[in-house]
Amino acid sequence: MSETPPEPSESAKAGLPEDEVAALREAGRSWSLVPRARVQTGRDFVEPDLGVLERRGRAGEHYVRVVRPKNQGFKNVAPGWLEATARATAPTSDMGRFAKRIRGFILGQPLATAQQEGEKLTKVKALAVLSSDALSSVAYATEQILVVLVVAGSAATQYSLPIMGAIVFLLCAVVLSYRQTIKAYPAGGGSYIVAKDNLGPLFGLVAAAALMTDYVLTVAVSVSSGKDFVASSVPWVGQHGVLVCSGIIVLIVLGNLRGIRESGSIFAAPTYLFIFGIFVMLIVGFIRLATHTTLPVQTAPLGHAIEGVGILLILKAFASGCTALTGVEAISDGVPAFKPPGWHNARTTLTVMGLTLGTMFVGITLGAHLLGLHPYKSSNPPIIVQFATAAFGSNSAGLYFVTWTTAAILVLAANTSFSDFPRLFFFLARDDYAPHQFRRLGERLAFNNGIVVLAAMAVLLVWVFGARVDSLIPLYTIGVFLAFTMSQGGMVMRWLKRREPGWRRGLPLNAVGMSLTALVFIITAAAKFTSGAWVVLIIIPTFVTVFYAIHRHYQDVATHLTTEIPISPADLKPVCIVPIAELNGVAMQSLAMARAISDSVIAVHICDDEHHIERLRAKWEIWGNHVPLEIVESPYRSFIRPLLRYIDAIDKQHGDNTIIIVLPELVATRWWHALLHNQTALRLKAQLLFRPGTVVINVPYHLQRAPHVRRIRRRGDGGDDDIEAI
Amino acid sequence: MSETPPEPSESAKAGLPEDEVAALREAGRSWSLVPRARVQTGRDFVEPDLGVLERRGRAGEHYVRVVRPKNQGFKNVAPGWLEATARATAPTSDMGRFAKRIRGFILGQPLATAQQEGEKLTKVKALAVLSSDALSSVAYATEQILVVLVVAGSAATQYSLPIMGAIVFLLCAVVLSYRQTIKAYPAGGGSYIVAKDNLGPLFGLVAAAALMTDYVLTVAVSVSSGKDFVASSVPWVGQHGVLVCSGIIVLIVLGNLRGIRESGSIFAAPTYLFIFGIFVMLIVGFIRLATHTTLPVQTAPLGHAIEGVGILLILKAFASGCTALTGVEAISDGVPAFKPPGWHNARTTLTVMGLTLGTMFVGITLGAHLLGLHPYKSSNPPIIVQFATAAFGSNSAGLYFVTWTTAAILVLAANTSFSDFPRLFFFLARDDYAPHQFRRLGERLAFNNGIVVLAAMAVLLVWVFGARVDSLIPLYTIGVFLAFTMSQGGMVMRWLKRREPGWRRGLPLNAVGMSLTALVFIITAAAKFTSGAWVVLIIIPTFVTVFYAIHRHYQDVATHLTTEIPISPADLKPVCIVPIAELNGVAMQSLAMARAISDSVIAVHICDDEHHIERLRAKWEIWGNHVPLEIVESPYRSFIRPLLRYIDAIDKQHGDNTIIIVLPELVATRWWHALLHNQTALRLKAQLLFRPGTVVINVPYHLQRAPHVRRIRRRGDGGDDDIEAI
Repeated sequence: MSETPPEPSESAKAGLPEDEVAALREAGRSWSLVPRARVQTGRDFVEPDLGVLERRGRAGEHYVRVVRPKNQGFKNVAPGWLEATARATAPTSDMGRFAKRIRGFILGQPLATAQQEGEKLTKVKALAVLSSDALSSVAYATEQILVVLVVAGSAATQYSLPIMGAIVFLLCAVVLSYRQTIKAYPAGGGSYIVAKDNLGPLFGLVAAAALMTDYVLTVAVSVSSGKDFVASSVPWVGQHGVLVCSGIIVLIVLGNLRGIRESGSIFAAPTYLFIFGIFVMLIVGFIRLATHTTLPVQTAPLGHAIEGVGILLILKAFASGCTALTGVEAISDGVPAFKPPGWHNARTTLTVMGLTLGTMFVGITLGAHLLGLHPYKSSNPPIIVQFATAAFGSNSAGLYFVTWTTAAILVLAANTSFSDFPRLFFFLARDDYAPHQFRRLGERLAFNNGIVVLAAMAVLLVWVFGARVDSLIPLYTIGVFLAFTMSQGGMVMRWLKRREPGWRRGLPLNAVGMSLTALVFIITAAAKFTSGAWVVLIIIPTFVTVFYAIHRHYQDVATHLTTEIPISPADLKPVCIVPIAELNGVAMQSLAMARAISDSVIAVHICDDEHHIERLRAKWEIWGNHVPLEIVESPYRSFIRPLLRYIDAIDKQHGDNTIIIVLPELVATRWWHALLHNQTALRLKAQLLFRPGTVVINVPYHLQRAPHVRRIRRRGDGGDDDIEAI
Repeated sequence: MSETPPEPSESAKAGLPEDEVAALREAGRSWSLVPRARVQTGRDFVEPDLGVLERRGRAGEHYVRVVRPKNQGFKNVAPGWLEATARATAPTSDMGRFAKRIRGFILGQPLATAQQEGEKLTKVKALAVLSSDALSSVAYATEQILVVLVVAGSAATQYSLPIMGAIVFLLCAVVLSYRQTIKAYPAGGGSYIVAKDNLGPLFGLVAAAALMTDYVLTVAVSVSSGKDFVASSVPWVGQHGVLVCSGIIVLIVLGNLRGIRESGSIFAAPTYLFIFGIFVMLIVGFIRLATHTTLPVQTAPLGHAIEGVGILLILKAFASGCTALTGVEAISDGVPAFKPPGWHNARTTLTVMGLTLGTMFVGITLGAHLLGLHPYKSSNPPIIVQFATAAFGSNSAGLYFVTWTTAAILVLAANTSFSDFPRLFFFLARDDYAPHQFRRLGERLAFNNGIVVLAAMAVLLVWVFGARVDSLIPLYTIGVFLAFTMSQGGMVMRWLKRREPGWRRGLPLNAVGMSLTALVFIITAAAKFTSGAWVVLIIIPTFVTVFYAIHRHYQDVATHLTTEIPISPADLKPVCIVPIAELNGVAMQSLAMARAISDSVIAVHICDDEHHIERLRAKWEIWGNHVPLEIVESPYRSFIRPLLRYIDAIDKQHGDNTIIIVLPELVATRWWHALLHNQTALRLKAQLLFRPGTVVINVPYHLQRAPHVRRIRRRGDGGDDDIEAI
């Protein structure tokens, strides 16, 4: 076993910036004044590699053997390099093991980082995994157009057709635009990354904040809409909407905490079943329409027209209908998940998705118009359910199939956000715009923090809006189209800057996409401003500000982090202050600790009882007066402030000393024991924490009835409890 | 300035037990192996007395002058002995100063311990201060007898007269009995002390638990009853009884937190006004009765008899009436407050109080019977108010005088408990039966903790019982009479043991007192068992058990307190483990701290990123490899458990090393900064706290924009955030 670990590779060294190397050399220089810290050279030193040295052979022969005891939970990779086994990560207490088993049952066993490389997706599976959000939009898009239009009476519903046309045109533009993005960002081109790369961080953060609202709303809207579908056949669900939606979100969270692998494979079936169901429904429905054999649908009559058909109403209806486009960007985020050639497969999948989505949306909207269906209300089931009733009849297997597959894909759509939101926050955290906790991979390689935060926000929304889709919709599309605009704008800028091959075709496509989505963003924000859009228009800049504040903090930490404590032991002049209540074992142990650390030790006793002071000084004398004792009388019985002032005064004597406070700490063995000892030490520690450059040493003591441990008489007399063992 | 502080007085040394002296000498012996910790001997050493040394004179002449800088907040009492001035106790921040001013306005300025010696009470003032609880009982005692009796119809109220007779007889016995106690315990003979001294701790604790319930109920009952009186003229108060009672308790708490001095002087006036008012009312009332000129009183008619008059009913009424005796023991508790000769003055005061109480009780009960008054209900005002109406007429000044002085004395009665309860808990805490926090004197020399706990419990009772006196009464008398019995029993035992002069007279008096109060206790408990008394019969043994558990814990702490850390620096073999995330300033400072403390230092890096490990090892090499670096790969990304297991493995290598963990700690300058750094350090500290014998050193670092402080580049690359600066 050599003293120095093996030389790290030269490439690693070469990768370090010059100034950092110089700074490290400089920092190391003053350390040369003290000898290197010791490692294993004999029986009395510790062996960091956890071997035990056995001296063998006769005297004079320095034959040393390293014996590595088994079952310590570590594998030796190289000298100075251990690997923690699952055993070292396992809980040691019975309680902990039990909790782990429960956790393992619900969330699965922990996965090692090496297991991260997941399966790549085929196009067929990718369509299912990445498109559920987009495809599920047809479940409520038509509905939302009609909900707005019926305010102007049943005649106004005919305007749904031109609105549908505009939306389909928009869909084409967006799909074509994103095909460019996919090619340009084969490693995944979320709106945040594209906007940040090409337009700078401000636009990136606007896109991120917009996407964030989008993801939260996707969860709330999809789950609420799914609930409406189930409610059409199970009325209880409709009556307890908020509870049901919250429950579904919790289930999705559990699924996601189990990790990506499982959540991937459960996608495929329901998505294709949903597509299948809708297409059969459309075909049967249109055949029946053509043959005039549609089955009766029971709906409540529409109310009277409240207002006339105006441009604002049409725009509102258009804005609501644009929810059909939500989720289209998911494929461009997920390019790396595709089997190679990733970008090519992703483009194909995007086109297929766009065609499927467009066809279903046109079919449903057209059919609803021809069938004269009325949008969802407390008494009416959702449009698709009405459509299926007209096609298959009420209580038919076809109706239930469509209803349940739609509910299923809506839940899966909510699930998509649980991949996207944590990934977005991982990127934000990586760039120091979000708390670094979002970078942490959970036991199952999922970003647990992002998952939980998203769920909390979605549940909050569901509760605030009573799980009503039409109340949530006005908030929804704004974020989506703002993010679209930022993303397409980024692509436009990229084409202009780089002029890469194909820019003459790509630029106009993205420019049209950008212009249209920007227009829709403005229309949506304006048309729905009073019905809730203003909330989003406040939230987005607020979050951008928060992202910037977080960024500034992390920048500060990276550049302005300071410490009054020298970074070399040669410069360190420790002065230990030991607050003591009584000259007992606990105090002596703290004093011993202090004395072992430093030559300059002061024991401070803060007290207001003359009698007690006398006794303490007498005991100090008997003990041998090994450490100077300073009595601080506190006539107002306060303990912490006089001590802090005393520390200040000592600190002021020499600017370059490091003040070390040695505090004993009782290790409570029963929860209620903590109540029986006053919390002075805790409050003192909290105060000292805010005193820069003050080192605090916690020396534990505890109750032990075992006979082999040294027992110490603690209190000579009553003591002064205020400053007591603490 | 000498190196050693002045010799403590020999008497103090002499007072120490032999074995303690031997233990201290023994403990000091091993310290002789290391030199004494240094104090001021030159410029480079700290001066614990806070002087600054100035070397004067020419070279060779060792002339040193101590200059003591002003305004450090400390006065020099003797070498090694400072006194904290008010300045050292004052808050330093603007916020703190503002809070202190507000606090000072409400609660008064802090008082020094030396100001504790309060005024001694004259008999006239003592009667007012110590008797309000007892005297105020007449406000509800008669009422409670009648409330029980009317269940058997209006004819049953005649039984109030024999019950009254029995209670007066009991009063005489108790007063005579307590006259003995006062003489025997001139330093204050609360039931707890008397019972504990003579019958042992179990009986003392039973008395204490009983008294505790008594004090809490005194507050609840008195305040609720006072509320009823005010409600008779201000109906709003009756409608918001719980709120009003809680508000009054809060006001009493504030008064008591201001300290004893003020609360003493506001007692005298209302007590004497109350006595004056009642006596005038009785005289006028009986004159009107004799002359048949009583004024009309409007009361609701009594309901029909629900049950017949039986022995249980009579006993119940008697038990309720015994509330008249509550508070009689207060004078015997307060003997030390009397002007000398304390015990003599206290006895006289007790007798006067007993006569006053007895006369008022007899007068009111007799008068109520003759006037045919009906007890308090929602529609009827309290008996005393009815009596005053009959004597002075409704809406008369006399009526209002009696009403308001009665309400006032009831509030003062509640106030008495706020002196008694904290004093009882001080004694319990002193004897290790209650948390030591109850021993702590507040800024104004009041036992703040006891005051706040009592108030909390009383408010709880008021809320639970809706501030209704007749609901609270069944709980009340049990505790009082149990405490009486314990106290008298203690006196009986004392006479028997000591046979002091006068025992032949004292013994029978106390024996009679004990027997009667024991009888009343049994009657009360039995008669009211089902109507609430069972609660108290559960609470008392529960609290006795808790007191014992607390005692056992403090005993354990005193005798079994252990530590794995040696009590001499010569025996201390520290091994420092420094968990590091990156070789930056923060890490180097922690390493410097560790290296300054110990030769054996191990830097541990826990990580799952091979690339990061490579970089770190390269940097380590460049820095100079001054401390052995141990990499612990954690494939499951957990940080705390592998570290704890590694510490365990190191600890196992040599049983006698002291493991020291050096942890950097970010000093957050904004509250939200704490959210941006993961709480690994905090969780690690919590885990290490439960590892006996592991010392934790917290090295602070913080954000600083000032240019003069050394700046350190923190992160070379992304680092691995999980184990990051923490």
